[in-house]
Amino acid sequence: MDSLLSTPLEAGTKGLPNDAAGLLLSNVASRNWNLLQGHIPLPSLVIKQRALEHNAGWMRDFLERQNILFAPHGKTTMAPQLFDLQLRYGAWGITVATAQQLKVCRRFGVQRILMANQLVSVSDIEYVAGEMRRDETFEFYCLVDSSEGAERLQRVLEQAGPAKPLRVLVEVGVPGGRTGCRTVDEAIRVAEKISALSRLSLYGVECYEGVISTGDGKEDERRITALLQRAETVYQGCRSRRLFADKGCVILSAGGSAWFDVVASTIGRISDEAVKVIVRSGCYLPHDSLFYDRHFHKLQARRGSEAGLPGSLKPAMEVWACVQSIPEPGLAVLSAGKRDVSHDLEFPVVEKWFRPGISTHPGPIAGETAIIALHDQHACMQFSKETDLAIGDMLALGISHPCTTFDKWRLLWLVDDDYNVTGGIRTFF
Amino acid sequence: MDSLLSTPLEAGTKGLPNDAAGLLLSNVASRNWNLLQGHIPLPSLVIKQRALEHNAGWMRDFLERQNILFAPHGKTTMAPQLFDLQLRYGAWGITVATAQQLKVCRRFGVQRILMANQLVSVSDIEYVAGEMRRDETFEFYCLVDSSEGAERLQRVLEQAGPAKPLRVLVEVGVPGGRTGCRTVDEAIRVAEKISALSRLSLYGVECYEGVISTGDGKEDERRITALLQRAETVYQGCRSRRLFADKGCVILSAGGSAWFDVVASTIGRISDEAVKVIVRSGCYLPHDSLFYDRHFHKLQARRGSEAGLPGSLKPAMEVWACVQSIPEPGLAVLSAGKRDVSHDLEFPVVEKWFRPGISTHPGPIAGETAIIALHDQHACMQFSKETDLAIGDMLALGISHPCTTFDKWRLLWLVDDDYNVTGGIRTFF
Repeated sequence: MDSLLSTPLEAGTKGLPNDAAGLLLSNVASRNWNLLQGHIPLPSLVIKQRALEHNAGWMRDFLERQNILFAPHGKTTMAPQLFDLQLRYGAWGITVATAQQLKVCRRFGVQRILMANQLVSVSDIEYVAGEMRRDETFEFYCLVDSSEGAERLQRVLEQAGPAKPLRVLVEVGVPGGRTGCRTVDEAIRVAEKISALSRLSLYGVECYEGVISTGDGKEDERRITALLQRAETVYQGCRSRRLFADKGCVILSAGGSAWFDVVASTIGRISDEAVKVIVRSGCYLPHDSLFYDRHFHKLQARRGSEAGLPGSLKPAMEVWACVQSIPEPGLAVLSAGKRDVSHDLEFPVVEKWFRPGISTHPGPIAGETAIIALHDQHACMQFSKETDLAIGDMLALGISHPCTTFDKWRLLWLVDDDYNVTGGIRTFF
Repeated sequence: MDSLLSTPLEAGTKGLPNDAAGLLLSNVASRNWNLLQGHIPLPSLVIKQRALEHNAGWMRDFLERQNILFAPHGKTTMAPQLFDLQLRYGAWGITVATAQQLKVCRRFGVQRILMANQLVSVSDIEYVAGEMRRDETFEFYCLVDSSEGAERLQRVLEQAGPAKPLRVLVEVGVPGGRTGCRTVDEAIRVAEKISALSRLSLYGVECYEGVISTGDGKEDERRITALLQRAETVYQGCRSRRLFADKGCVILSAGGSAWFDVVASTIGRISDEAVKVIVRSGCYLPHDSLFYDRHFHKLQARRGSEAGLPGSLKPAMEVWACVQSIPEPGLAVLSAGKRDVSHDLEFPVVEKWFRPGISTHPGPIAGETAIIALHDQHACMQFSKETDLAIGDMLALGISHPCTTFDKWRLLWLVDDDYNVTGGIRTFF
């Protein structure tokens, strides 16, 4: 982490002020920049430090009360500084989706990594084998969802030869979904194959409920519960067949950022001291203003007054842009586009308005506004007659889907409640 | 450019082989990597060098025959090495959309830059003023589409004080579109305002026809022709009012990657020696397999056997991924997702199939395939009974919209016809 904090920021990095090329991340706070005073170029992505830490604490408290472990999904932010924060808040490890993400974690010293995905390419398997040889304390798990996949790992590991077998979880999926064995029988067959291979050790069962989305919340909950029950049945089948390599340590993992409470109330209740239930939410940390915020309100409605849910997750991300043109009445063009803000789930919304030199602090925008189009580098925003808007006004956009907003930035800013910049965060996509 | 070629590649960069951290771009070719031999991790973005250079030459030849200048849009690739190639192929300058893109161009020595956008933020205006003070040979143009915008530039430039006035073009737009004056009268009023301000010089007229897209090609052509005619009327009005700062040099600029032939056949025909017509296409260079390829076929159909169109632009980009799971009959999950390939216009298509250890070269995939879903890190692909597919098979995805594929990569590979890696290209988004 020290090496990251002492790497100079490159000239031309999006969001970096004019005079700051070569600045070290560790020296950002000493610049006394303030977003609202125009020190930061727009567009910029800011993370509100208070909300970020609130969210980190909220999830730690929720999972601790449920006696569930946490391997937050690193793919959301791909920011080693935030991985560090998550680990300081008690995370058991970090989840990744790809070998590239794994390499970033390793570069910055993450020791326990769950790759919630298949490891397929020969060079990726060789990389893992190399890390296992180089560092005996590196603890790594990945998924297998077919006998072919298991045999493929075995073949490469026989050549690449780490001393210890590779720890794998069998993945359970849903028909029409993504990866994962479609039936209990198939998953058990794959588990048997794994346990028969010398270079692999079966350490548990995994599923990802987030691929289920019918549009009907009740139906989703029914199907998700069924998937989790199927994963539990696979676990029971593997245990009764003695397929787990370490009967004192079996991992059951599920849980993105929308349904982790259902994971807690299903497989989280398994009464087996050997079982570690691991949830992998990633979006809880930055949270958002739309998609995950709606999911969180549903989660609160599902749980009612059930213990263990003090307060709410808070949107911590804002993409700030300025009004660059008001070419006709009721239409403004903003200086942020597809390349600055997520648009895969829905368009962003205007959360705050600030007029430099006039406003004392950001407030809600008057009247009605709607982003109606995103171009690569522009947003088109409709606004009502009540909306007071001028070229140069600054707007905070609330986003939907943190993953596809983070990946549009190499550098983002941590800010306090007054938008003083307290630090910079680098991402590695 | 030397500094770029001698910067070490960072560990964890997506697409970088395991053992290559610290490698200099200038030494990539000496590694003798080959994509098909598994030297490059997947997913990776490759650019076929022959197609790239063909496209660069095609556009140079087309525009030269039309006697039109070229400022290719740098936003597409944000790759200074490709800007360098474009300038070597005779480009007049480079177009950018944002101050960040401008900074990247300046960092890597681009001297003539057209910012096809408003310059709004105080710190961005100050940056330009600083560059103008620092380097008298820096030639910069940006757009203005309102008197407020012009006055804003004047105010900041009075403080920031470059010796020479800032060169600006008045922007003409379309109702319901993006930026730009909606009527001729309004554009003339803005031009009059510009010419009355001491710190600004009016150098021309600009429009962007690419925002017009009704879904009906004939109607689009009619509206685009009308927009270009309106821009010409604004130019005539400014000339007759003697608003241009340099009557020996007036810029008329339009033209993305879909309609540049119509630009050539309208404002490209203005008989005024003082006029430089500048087209700004960006996507022509990598081209694509879907959106711009269809547009190019329409362009060829529009132009018929008209002189000056030897051959076609060729898709130069491929995102390679592998099959990581075949969880049910007819469904494969690939190791590339929303974060690796554009999805804002349409999903990618499978162009080539290669089975390591078996295939001798990539060929078309048997049967029917379709990408039916993209997740952050996965693609779900349906395939027919005729399709021969196994875990570990490599697939080349043809993309739609180069801009939103390039921005998902920090590093991409140049390859020859046999997929030998001949160089690496860094991007700066």
